[in-house]
Amino acid sequence: MLQIAILGFGVVGSGTAEVLQENRARIAKHCGEEVNVKYILDLRDFPDHPLGDRVVHDINVILADPEVVLVAEMMGGSHPAYEFTVAALRAGKSVVTSNKEVVSTFGDELLEIAREHHVSYYFEASVGGGIPIIRPLQTDLASNEILGISGILNGTTNFILTKMKNEGADFATVLKEAQARGYAEADPTADVEGIDAARKIVILAALAYGVLLDPKSISTTGITGITADHTAVADKLGGAIKLIGHTERVDGRVLAMVSPFLIPAGNPVCHVDGVFNGILVDANMLGRALFYGAGAGKLPTASAVVADILDILSHKESERLAPVWRRAKAEDVADADALVCRRCYLIEGCPRCAEKAKAALGGEICAFIREGAFFVVSRPMSGGEAREALSATGLEAVFCLPVLD
Amino acid sequence: MLQIAILGFGVVGSGTAEVLQENRARIAKHCGEEVNVKYILDLRDFPDHPLGDRVVHDINVILADPEVVLVAEMMGGSHPAYEFTVAALRAGKSVVTSNKEVVSTFGDELLEIAREHHVSYYFEASVGGGIPIIRPLQTDLASNEILGISGILNGTTNFILTKMKNEGADFATVLKEAQARGYAEADPTADVEGIDAARKIVILAALAYGVLLDPKSISTTGITGITADHTAVADKLGGAIKLIGHTERVDGRVLAMVSPFLIPAGNPVCHVDGVFNGILVDANMLGRALFYGAGAGKLPTASAVVADILDILSHKESERLAPVWRRAKAEDVADADALVCRRCYLIEGCPRCAEKAKAALGGEICAFIREGAFFVVSRPMSGGEAREALSATGLEAVFCLPVLD
Repeated sequence: MLQIAILGFGVVGSGTAEVLQENRARIAKHCGEEVNVKYILDLRDFPDHPLGDRVVHDINVILADPEVVLVAEMMGGSHPAYEFTVAALRAGKSVVTSNKEVVSTFGDELLEIAREHHVSYYFEASVGGGIPIIRPLQTDLASNEILGISGILNGTTNFILTKMKNEGADFATVLKEAQARGYAEADPTADVEGIDAARKIVILAALAYGVLLDPKSISTTGITGITADHTAVADKLGGAIKLIGHTERVDGRVLAMVSPFLIPAGNPVCHVDGVFNGILVDANMLGRALFYGAGAGKLPTASAVVADILDILSHKESERLAPVWRRAKAEDVADADALVCRRCYLIEGCPRCAEKAKAALGGEICAFIREGAFFVVSRPMSGGEAREALSATGLEAVFCLPVLD
Repeated sequence: MLQIAILGFGVVGSGTAEVLQENRARIAKHCGEEVNVKYILDLRDFPDHPLGDRVVHDINVILADPEVVLVAEMMGGSHPAYEFTVAALRAGKSVVTSNKEVVSTFGDELLEIAREHHVSYYFEASVGGGIPIIRPLQTDLASNEILGISGILNGTTNFILTKMKNEGADFATVLKEAQARGYAEADPTADVEGIDAARKIVILAALAYGVLLDPKSISTTGITGITADHTAVADKLGGAIKLIGHTERVDGRVLAMVSPFLIPAGNPVCHVDGVFNGILVDANMLGRALFYGAGAGKLPTASAVVADILDILSHKESERLAPVWRRAKAEDVADADALVCRRCYLIEGCPRCAEKAKAALGGEICAFIREGAFFVVSRPMSGGEAREALSATGLEAVFCLPVLD
């Protein structure tokens, strides 16, 4: 019998217990032994839960028990999740987590501590909920250089943007509906301002390039400024606006950013709608692959946590494959402005202005969404180049969206 | 230095050598040692290839060399690929393959021989080309019961169907273009008749349910009968027609089939266009996940072969996780007719006939594509039930397409 502990018995923690219970036979077959939840750490008691007798309130009970080989941390927030993770790894227990805040902030250090203590630190559930993405990047794409990753990493904002597009509704109205349906929290800041997506793209960038950026310092634009004009432009182009976490290497530096992008219909990310997530990986041998599915939710996320648990419990000697991340220095980081891509500008002006803007930006697409307001799509260039070209015309843009081709 | 051999130096075989060479440093880091192609088995010589000196014409040279720990079989066809695989496994060498014909026909036996000899038999590249699907099913979805798999598993037919839809062209014209562009072979039978997709869905069904069906005996309908009328119906419904390999369990039996399906726009499979493949997995904990990417091609397929090589070379003790397949007996197999789904019928008749068909099939959608020809979408029911309901009206259908909701 393999003994594990669950830290935090909220949505994902209780979901993990449920997945382990529901699929007990399959899991035992996979691991060669039954997996048992010996302890649940939480501030609360759960007297009516079938596992209520496993609840403890002191992490030291778990740390001191040599039978516990693995700890699943699903507390959320940085503290004390970080301290408990360090303590568990130092006590020789592997740790799996769904906590993107901890992974994106302390992942380099935690992987290092795991390595020193010959245990594993896995975090499949920290990005894309239940969607397999971390393990495929490390195994299936192991022979590939990652050219870039672009993902819809937040289901709340994707639900809102999809509704805004389909119903022509405005941001505030749709946010209220999302809150009523439980897709958005009472304080939606982390979602709608892109903070959640920033943590996730920082984790994916670290997996791709070995460098952990500070999620608080990457260029992050949310969706609160998206208006009916944005939607109108996307409609005209036959595409959609999506909040994208994007990473790639520019001149040897790592660029990671979160921003609303304009997605043409030919890009499969354009069709990832509602609360779903979709992560497009561009790799030098494989080409483009999309991983699509439930980016959040109790059982999908728990499914990913349990996949990590099974992977660790069924392999004893996988440390060699653990990624090595180093913390980014200033010279490792590329500015979001360095991104070379097409950009879509909405500009207020006359048909002659439109011609001028089109010529200056080397664009092929230019159209009016109403009298006095047109959009133009530039040729691929950096943000600085595009700004300069536009400023030389004397025109000012109402907004600018990068295009994900 | 880890020594391997490549059997068959065609497109995928030479691509595998190329991926190993291009990503040499990354691969050495992953495996802890360099990986070297010691032998290439082929009937031909390749005097101008950098690895030309590795070419041998006798499998026994490879089998007798104890340094060779792994053999990558990319010969295609059943024979002698099957015999060489058996011999390599018996000689204590792990085998990876892209050969769907061998896996779908002899997979149960080859996995068993691998188990007996404590080596591995991996076949990620046999389904979906470069797309990670086999390993995610076995690791990321290990805690899930698979409720169903529906995939666009053949890029050639998807290219043809996409063109037919976008350009309103007919099958014969588009097939010629596909052949000219190298997307279809001179003899396109295996692709357009669904034989290739049948092999792949049989492999996925075996992974999901542990039972290996005979790819030659599952219900297989290709795309040669698709006409402008089919496309017109799909257009009216806002969806698309795709050739789908589908598997699920019906009353404890395994159903596997290949057929053109009508895909509504809300299903992500609808937007998998051109030569791309997309595999939708429905799992009891994760829900629906789509795996999308290049389903064929030299480097994408080789990327999957190399992923298998790396997985085996970096883990020594993964036999426990190898799937166990048993060959299907008659009572294991469900008839394709047992599939409960909506079905779309095209019927020639008057508006009164349309009302009659709609009522009989319990359908909500019914429309004319031209005078005297209407389609009706039934409520979800089995094929037998639907046929009976329709035959009671005295109407006959021009065609019937299952709907993938």
